[in-house]
Amino acid sequence: MIDPQRYPRLSRIAVPADLRQFPEEELPAIADELRAYLIEQVARVGGHFGAGLGVIELTVALHWLYETPVDRLVWDVGHQCYPHKILTGRRDSIHTVKQKGGVAPFPKREESEYDTFGVGHSSTSISAALGMAIALQRSGDERKVVAVIGDGAMTGGMAFEALAHGGGMGDERGGIEPNLLVILNDNQMSISENVGGVTRMLGRLTGSRTLNALREGGKKLLGDKHGAPARFVRRWEEHWKGMFVPSTFFEELGFHYTGPIDGHDLPSLLGALKTLKTLKGPQLLHIITTKGKGYELAEGDQIGYHAVGPFDPAQGMVKKAAAKKPTYTDVFGDWLCDMAASDPKLMGITPAMREGSGLVRFSREYPERYFDVAIAEQHAVTLAAGMACEGAKPVVAIYSTFLQRGYDQLVHDVAIQNLDVLFAIDRGGVVGPDGATHAGNLDLSYLRCVPNMVVMAPADENECRMMLSTGHYHEGPAAVRYPRGTGPGVEVGTDLDTLPIGRAELRRRGGPVALLAFGAVVAAAETVAASLGLTLVNMRFVKPLDRALILELAKTHHGFVTLEDNVVAGGAGSGVAELLAAEGVTLPVLHLGLPDAFQHHASREELLAEAGLDADGIRRSLLARWPELALRPAQTATL
Amino acid sequence: MIDPQRYPRLSRIAVPADLRQFPEEELPAIADELRAYLIEQVARVGGHFGAGLGVIELTVALHWLYETPVDRLVWDVGHQCYPHKILTGRRDSIHTVKQKGGVAPFPKREESEYDTFGVGHSSTSISAALGMAIALQRSGDERKVVAVIGDGAMTGGMAFEALAHGGGMGDERGGIEPNLLVILNDNQMSISENVGGVTRMLGRLTGSRTLNALREGGKKLLGDKHGAPARFVRRWEEHWKGMFVPSTFFEELGFHYTGPIDGHDLPSLLGALKTLKTLKGPQLLHIITTKGKGYELAEGDQIGYHAVGPFDPAQGMVKKAAAKKPTYTDVFGDWLCDMAASDPKLMGITPAMREGSGLVRFSREYPERYFDVAIAEQHAVTLAAGMACEGAKPVVAIYSTFLQRGYDQLVHDVAIQNLDVLFAIDRGGVVGPDGATHAGNLDLSYLRCVPNMVVMAPADENECRMMLSTGHYHEGPAAVRYPRGTGPGVEVGTDLDTLPIGRAELRRRGGPVALLAFGAVVAAAETVAASLGLTLVNMRFVKPLDRALILELAKTHHGFVTLEDNVVAGGAGSGVAELLAAEGVTLPVLHLGLPDAFQHHASREELLAEAGLDADGIRRSLLARWPELALRPAQTATL
Repeated sequence: MIDPQRYPRLSRIAVPADLRQFPEEELPAIADELRAYLIEQVARVGGHFGAGLGVIELTVALHWLYETPVDRLVWDVGHQCYPHKILTGRRDSIHTVKQKGGVAPFPKREESEYDTFGVGHSSTSISAALGMAIALQRSGDERKVVAVIGDGAMTGGMAFEALAHGGGMGDERGGIEPNLLVILNDNQMSISENVGGVTRMLGRLTGSRTLNALREGGKKLLGDKHGAPARFVRRWEEHWKGMFVPSTFFEELGFHYTGPIDGHDLPSLLGALKTLKTLKGPQLLHIITTKGKGYELAEGDQIGYHAVGPFDPAQGMVKKAAAKKPTYTDVFGDWLCDMAASDPKLMGITPAMREGSGLVRFSREYPERYFDVAIAEQHAVTLAAGMACEGAKPVVAIYSTFLQRGYDQLVHDVAIQNLDVLFAIDRGGVVGPDGATHAGNLDLSYLRCVPNMVVMAPADENECRMMLSTGHYHEGPAAVRYPRGTGPGVEVGTDLDTLPIGRAELRRRGGPVALLAFGAVVAAAETVAASLGLTLVNMRFVKPLDRALILELAKTHHGFVTLEDNVVAGGAGSGVAELLAAEGVTLPVLHLGLPDAFQHHASREELLAEAGLDADGIRRSLLARWPELALRPAQTATL
Repeated sequence: MIDPQRYPRLSRIAVPADLRQFPEEELPAIADELRAYLIEQVARVGGHFGAGLGVIELTVALHWLYETPVDRLVWDVGHQCYPHKILTGRRDSIHTVKQKGGVAPFPKREESEYDTFGVGHSSTSISAALGMAIALQRSGDERKVVAVIGDGAMTGGMAFEALAHGGGMGDERGGIEPNLLVILNDNQMSISENVGGVTRMLGRLTGSRTLNALREGGKKLLGDKHGAPARFVRRWEEHWKGMFVPSTFFEELGFHYTGPIDGHDLPSLLGALKTLKTLKGPQLLHIITTKGKGYELAEGDQIGYHAVGPFDPAQGMVKKAAAKKPTYTDVFGDWLCDMAASDPKLMGITPAMREGSGLVRFSREYPERYFDVAIAEQHAVTLAAGMACEGAKPVVAIYSTFLQRGYDQLVHDVAIQNLDVLFAIDRGGVVGPDGATHAGNLDLSYLRCVPNMVVMAPADENECRMMLSTGHYHEGPAAVRYPRGTGPGVEVGTDLDTLPIGRAELRRRGGPVALLAFGAVVAAAETVAASLGLTLVNMRFVKPLDRALILELAKTHHGFVTLEDNVVAGGAGSGVAELLAAEGVTLPVLHLGLPDAFQHHASREELLAEAGLDADGIRRSLLARWPELALRPAQTATL
């Protein structure tokens, strides 16, 4: 429970209605308490940190001024939602964040009526808020809608699409302007530093007394000397701003621009918001904030403190000793540097996930072949396609769940043209504490149906490296899809050897049932196969399948079990069944995989166990289908 | 063969090298011949028309000035590529466009080395060209790269992503500016009128003598009176432009802007291009053109003449008498209006496909509930999600192939939150003459793996209407996926009746094999089932499947045949096999569907026959698997 001594005000705020009982003068003190409480709680259990600290004042101002949840507040991405959650009923449970059954790390509709739009991916908030504003407006509802979006999220194409739609609606014949406030939370960061032309555009900020004088002079010149009509004087005003602030960009798209203002200065913030609340039409408020604000160490290391494990607030994070086992991400990062050294045509592309995807070393050692394209998955994929047209060998490093946003580009630009692009897909399968929005449960299904694709899933770290080399040398589109975190701990080689495409690894010959396992579940399957004396195949290739081996095993076994950390629907196991059907082979097949449901946040292990994909669960499913397996003496593997 | 009397110059131009033999003065005459030839040829066989007429001068200028195909020319979307194809080796075969074995209607890498990047979807050209420019630059290659993109395509978010990346590259530490020319072909049209904030932004064009005077006055004021540094005078210049032309928008993102110029005036065009060819860094040339230019009827009806059937150039298109059979698109359009009349919460959304998706009448009758969001599929889907959060009932009308671009939004914003959005997916399955880029061959696979989705495929027109009502009243995400063109011709009702979710229709009881058919292939399957006395099920629901019926039929049949106009990999038939496997039922299953390959352009009928999905092909496949079926006397259907 919150300590009323340390938090005399916050302890009295369970929901925003309580906050709105306080007079305006007390809001800065409330913000201080909220910041201290956030630091205390996140330090205790870990979680997203810097983004929340950057919006303390904004969160207080919005919930104080607007009638949430009647008024609709939409947070983009959601890394910054912890202060919002603390003020909206989850103060006393925020320490359960990311844990199974605990508070979700992102806004989630089923968790709270204050979470108006579930999120996790970037750049959706303007679209969602615009949809809300239109729906409310059409039903004569006067509620306010506010979207909060970072400058990082603003680099995503769909934010631009939404701005252009919302900004242009009033121009159409009989068009109705939507009533919508977009707050641009500009901290020059995404998870890493924000990059690209949007940063350039927002970075124009400057202030100069001389220039202000010129501005007035210009107005005078227009108005007095040349007798320009009033509308040109207004235009002058508007465009003058564009010389120093990014107003022009937004105003050309049809949004009325206010700002920039200091997002940590509550009186300015409240002043601006009070005015904006009375205005109709599409409004954009530009605020400048500091990620990690108020916790010095986080301000000084904004990337490191984006998300944290538990730490002592007095000391800050303690640098972890290098883990003994490398993660798959590490394996990829090392491979990328090694292959770059060997092949000057290699290019590395990341949509704003340098740290998460393991590209830090590559970005330093090969800056001229490193491309952080900002949060722009669509562009990342087609950029790679363009590079491949000119003989380069691009590697797109991307999280499984974010590749969904480049799906059309993968199909239309890469696969149809059979271009030589390698997708290094991290966070495939079960991801865990970040919840359903970050799960990689669908990728094998949505990739397997695409012609020309080679799709691989490694059983261990060294195989991951070999698959990356295999995909790199393969002339055509290929994907290596590996899980979050560490694997079985197999030692990783240093060479760039490849695997034969479409060839599985028969790990264990037994009977009468053969386990055909894909990727991360091979290890658990192996345990079960050993204990029950069954055949085990590490399938390696989701596409193309090892046809010869599958048909041979079909002749000598009474049944197949396919195993994968992907949904069963259309997954790798379905591919095995399709192959058997196409060959006219009728054999009992049991498909083990993820359920046809979105999984809630929990640890990776918990979710795998829940899906029955740990050794216990696999064993249970096998015995339920073939109870006689329990009666057989375990056979020795014969290979 | 081309007539050298009528086309004295064009008849001597087989490839751009021939064009480059002509002196600059003759280029306008060549453009005239090219235009006349394009009109003649497209009138003869039909095809995309207006967009090509709009870029005649540009095409001539680019191929004359640049060393194509050594220099790289990338066309966005590709509707405008016919003149390019005529000048690059396909003059004498352009009359085969869209026909099986003939010229593709879009640039296609395997067709010609002049087609540097295959296309069909919008907004990819800047990404692709940037990728090319980077790859060439990194290997020390000085070749030029030019992308041509329309103002319609500029509304797509990925074009913005690419502009921001390319424009910002030089700002990064040690960053290298890409050498790239983007030509913005501004004709204020996509297929319909272009809409939204991008149009607003580009529409700022104006010219005024008074204002030019002011501009000079301003410069003077800055320079003389206030002694502002030179860089501010330059900035003044730059931003002054922003008051009348959209330079600011592009320049803020980091592109150097030139324009606007008249894209039909060859001397201006060549003048600008000659200068730009010598410049380094990211350049944007803004040209103004007229869609349909030079053919009066096309200029007057730009939507009607976007793509045409054969017509007499002297007369123009003859209005077709209303077809007897409505297309599925018509069925959707009528349903939408009828449902809108019944349910005030219905909202209709299209990403710039008002005509193609059948929303013309709806847009007129319900303008306040009609939303053309421009070419912005991502935004279209999340806008719908936002509307659904506030109790509206959005219908997203979208082509199957374009939904790929909203896939993440469908998963992350709609399905995870189980929101009440209906996807009316036109052009599902085999599409035909537009080729692989427009095929809807993957949708059942990529939709079926998504939890919470209801996925329907109608066997006929009336069922399509009933499914739309079913999806509309179902509380949660639903998709109705129907094919291009007409169906079997079943009379369409006028009510808003629904179907029970997850219930198939047993059309014919026979044996020993049951045909389980999904959507458009039901009719052909029925013919075969009748002739061979087999059981036939119109499955209706791809998800959820009719479990009870499938299990019942499994008990009474020796085998199943699943049929669908989707790839077999992960398709509807795989779902049937997964269900059987999950229930422990082992039964021979034959999956008939589209191949694991991208299909070339041809008529829909040709492609279905090629895939063995016409009645003949289905019969052949059945008899190959079960030759004994041929020996049985046809049974009468017993239902």
